Amino acid sequence: MKLYDCSTAPSPRRVRIFLAEKGISVPTVQVDLRAGEHFGAAFRTINPECTVPVLELDSGRHIADAIAICRYFEEREPEPPLMGRDAEDKAIVTAWQRRLERDGFYAVMEAFRNATRGLKGRGIPGPDDYEQIPALAERGRARVQRFFEVLDTRLAESEFVAGDRYTIADITALVTVDFARWIKLTAPESCAHLFRWYAAVTARPSAGA
Amino acid sequence: MKLYDCSTAPSPRRVRIFLAEKGISVPTVQVDLRAGEHFGAAFRTINPECTVPVLELDSGRHIADAIAICRYFEEREPEPPLMGRDAEDKAIVTAWQRRLERDGFYAVMEAFRNATRGLKGRGIPGPDDYEQIPALAERGRARVQRFFEVLDTRLAESEFVAGDRYTIADITALVTVDFARWIKLTAPESCAHLFRWYAAVTARPSAGA
Repeated sequence: MKLYDCSTAPSPRRVRIFLAEKGISVPTVQVDLRAGEHFGAAFRTINPECTVPVLELDSGRHIADAIAICRYFEEREPEPPLMGRDAEDKAIVTAWQRRLERDGFYAVMEAFRNATRGLKGRGIPGPDDYEQIPALAERGRARVQRFFEVLDTRLAESEFVAGDRYTIADITALVTVDFARWIKLTAPESCAHLFRWYAAVTARPSAGA
Repeated sequence: MKLYDCSTAPSPRRVRIFLAEKGISVPTVQVDLRAGEHFGAAFRTINPECTVPVLELDSGRHIADAIAICRYFEEREPEPPLMGRDAEDKAIVTAWQRRLERDGFYAVMEAFRNATRGLKGRGIPGPDDYEQIPALAERGRARVQRFFEVLDTRLAESEFVAGDRYTIADITALVTVDFARWIKLTAPESCAHLFRWYAAVTARPSAGA
């Protein structure tokens, strides 16, 4: 088994934090995104979608999605549970993870990819070229501000995003908050609950993954 | 327990098909999206995000996300498995579901919401108003064409999307293909594998849900 990773990229960081919380160690292969290695013929045989992370299983199959990779390890090593304990908790964790991913992580990505000079023609990750849409970058920035508010409101009533325990929803939120610095956005000072939570989750050793 | 539903909307249809495949019956409440009932004060107490589907549990908690609702029922009633059998299969199903949702379902939604006259100022579902972005509607249409190709290529090598059994990835793909008619897009005739699969999945009684 090996994990195709890029140590500077937000998407594979989600998997690295997840593995660190589980105490699982997987051999990694660094893919040089800056040099465009993910578009090369060799990497396309591993993942035609040209993205990281990718988990190569001993069966030879490839899992090319951060959350799907986490699901694999959650099933293999259930403790500590990071995707919920029982049916209701699993549903709540799933709902929060997806909401923060959609309204936060993807919003930062939209803002970043559609306004960064070096990413002209690369509005979406993957093998296809799509022109940047400046209005989409603007909309993404507005959505990230709303994400900060939603997250702060949620953390006013809950220690962690999905309840009283750290879960994959916290990982998505943490990676999103850090990713937002790439577009020079940080939560407003009024978001005291967000900052309380951020201090706690970044103090965990996994945050350095 | 009850399911807040809208019989004409694609998102809750994903849950309805899932429940039909499981043979589970849940009392439903129809939310009149055309009349804007989801923006009314009563529905906002159920889901401040103003979207359907929403599952109200007997505990009083609400799950306001289609895939999270499916996850709940998968845990409660594992047979037949629609989200994978073992760790590897669950990861593969998750990866396909997410890929087709992101590159298909969301692409149709982008194209639809950003070009429909009646949805001015409603570029994204939810409580916040975002202006339509015509370039995003165009990009969405291009991405849907790619979705058809990707789906056809996959179905050339596999009976169902995620392998030899019907799963939630087929539900996402089926609902996306039907949703694409809203923007007057259908797969090109060359997509023989897609049409073979589409005939099979629409022949299942669940497709009428």
